[in-house]
Amino acid sequence: MPPAETAADAVAVSALLERGRTLATPVLREAVDRLAPPMDTVAAYHFGWIDAEGRPADGDGGKAVRPALALLSAQAAGRAPEVGVPGAVAVELVHNFSLLHDDLMDGDEQRRHRDTVWKVHGPAQAILVGDALFALANEILLELGTVEAGRATRRLTRATRALIDGQAQDISYEHRDRVSVEECLEMEGNKTGALLACASSIGAVLGGADDATADTLEKYGYHLGLAFQAVDDLLGIWGDPEATGKQTWSDLRQRKKSLPVVAALAAGGPASERLGEMLAEDAKSSDFENFSEEEFAARAALIEEAGGREWTTQEARRQHTIAVQALESVRMPQEVRARFTALADFVVVRKR
Amino acid sequence: MPPAETAADAVAVSALLERGRTLATPVLREAVDRLAPPMDTVAAYHFGWIDAEGRPADGDGGKAVRPALALLSAQAAGRAPEVGVPGAVAVELVHNFSLLHDDLMDGDEQRRHRDTVWKVHGPAQAILVGDALFALANEILLELGTVEAGRATRRLTRATRALIDGQAQDISYEHRDRVSVEECLEMEGNKTGALLACASSIGAVLGGADDATADTLEKYGYHLGLAFQAVDDLLGIWGDPEATGKQTWSDLRQRKKSLPVVAALAAGGPASERLGEMLAEDAKSSDFENFSEEEFAARAALIEEAGGREWTTQEARRQHTIAVQALESVRMPQEVRARFTALADFVVVRKR
Repeated sequence: MPPAETAADAVAVSALLERGRTLATPVLREAVDRLAPPMDTVAAYHFGWIDAEGRPADGDGGKAVRPALALLSAQAAGRAPEVGVPGAVAVELVHNFSLLHDDLMDGDEQRRHRDTVWKVHGPAQAILVGDALFALANEILLELGTVEAGRATRRLTRATRALIDGQAQDISYEHRDRVSVEECLEMEGNKTGALLACASSIGAVLGGADDATADTLEKYGYHLGLAFQAVDDLLGIWGDPEATGKQTWSDLRQRKKSLPVVAALAAGGPASERLGEMLAEDAKSSDFENFSEEEFAARAALIEEAGGREWTTQEARRQHTIAVQALESVRMPQEVRARFTALADFVVVRKR
Repeated sequence: MPPAETAADAVAVSALLERGRTLATPVLREAVDRLAPPMDTVAAYHFGWIDAEGRPADGDGGKAVRPALALLSAQAAGRAPEVGVPGAVAVELVHNFSLLHDDLMDGDEQRRHRDTVWKVHGPAQAILVGDALFALANEILLELGTVEAGRATRRLTRATRALIDGQAQDISYEHRDRVSVEECLEMEGNKTGALLACASSIGAVLGGADDATADTLEKYGYHLGLAFQAVDDLLGIWGDPEATGKQTWSDLRQRKKSLPVVAALAAGGPASERLGEMLAEDAKSSDFENFSEEEFAARAALIEEAGGREWTTQEARRQHTIAVQALESVRMPQEVRARFTALADFVVVRKR
């Protein structure tokens, strides 16, 4: 059954996200405050706590799905949500380490409606502060000094390695004409699935859950991540700029080989072939930067006609289903299970 | 008593360094082989195992002081040197992560007589492979799955944070006219001392040594690192290009505010003042790149006349003494103590 957002669901999910933010942010800020100047300032800018001139700001800290999951996973192990806080903070630190480095590698100038760190503070600070956040993530966990913290750090390290692999794949795909659906899914699993998997289990690990339980919660998070990314790929083409904060046809402008595109190219048939020819021409075009809205709209229409939009919509549902089914084999309080499910539903129906 | 290198000492130290290389390198290569393409190739190039075209090479892997220390520290805890191998490999991975990122941040085009990774494979690969080596370092330790591995990883994380702090200081000092001797020593302690401290204790930690023992071994390594760096700073100005593989007056050409320079500037007196004026003029000069050998020689002579060379030579001996004295409070087999001392002597008398 496809998830449908009801008013009650929306309230429950908002509360979950809000709880994650409320419990994790103070600890995250405390961690970032440990950085020596000027890295503390650069990091505070990245997180949106101050503006480029150093004045306090109330930036968009993102949806905060990861902290919410980390807290919930502590509850899945029968523990208080607070037990998951160091895990939530460590995962956020790793996530932001990867954003800092990826934005520089990809040359992206904007993130969360603001200039990226390398653009404001220079490439060296983006590298250095990224490194520092990665190190802080391990520090926050390991200073707990428990066996569980060692296990959690090991899982986080595995997820970080997957993130790095995903970014390496993303970079190599940019230089290729064709990417298969399988390759795209593998890349998205590394870039998005692995860290959501870690977020969904790290609280449980810190709470003493065994490896089998942690693995199953990781499975939920991994497929939730793939659903999340499929929706992101849809929003990257057909999202409402008012809601997403991105340009119209954002991913097409960046020539991203996202799921709707690779699925459309793999589908075969007249629209698929026409799309393939068009994108091959675009790759050689020196005028691509000046394409009109209509030209991007024409490409989006071809992707839709070739079935790329529908396939990706179905893919988000398939991954959502696998995620929710994975939960069934973990014994946990009924209301915790309901919250995990509500978060999965939210990820699939979100508009931004 | 100042250390003097005898033929017997030299043989003993060579054997120690060779043992470190022999035991650590295969495990290091195995770890690097875990990286997904093309990161494995980029890392192999960085370590000097292949050349820029991918052909096998027998590169200069450096002096290998860190692996030798890690193995010796396992023996300080009464364990076999092999117990220190994962620690040696983790420390080497962190060291090389920092080289990859620092070379890019500093714009350095050469390392160990070869083009740096960012120069050959581009900035994105330098960032990505650096990140991957850092993650691998944690992975290698944490997959041991022991309480000791968690403690070792925590100490390595602390050292890594110090490395990052040191690089941040180094970058900020570049934009300043004056740096005090204390600031220079703090920066060198972070950039060189912290990781040698970790190398000198990590084998003992993996071998079950208590925190007090590990802290004392860290103290030895930290001051050994400061001695090492003081000698490096001397070689950076007065080293024999044949032995160091660097240009004559290398650090002066790079306008490095190294120990001999900051000590000379802090000394006061006519030579010190003249040096200060000269360097201030140099900083404004557009012709600095074309300075002759004689012009650099004149600056080196002023540094020496102001006492910067002698002060740094004495500083290396002071740090050597503190390092060796720290060992006295650790109970360890007599021949292990003798080897730690021989390594410290080697660091201070080396010519490259």
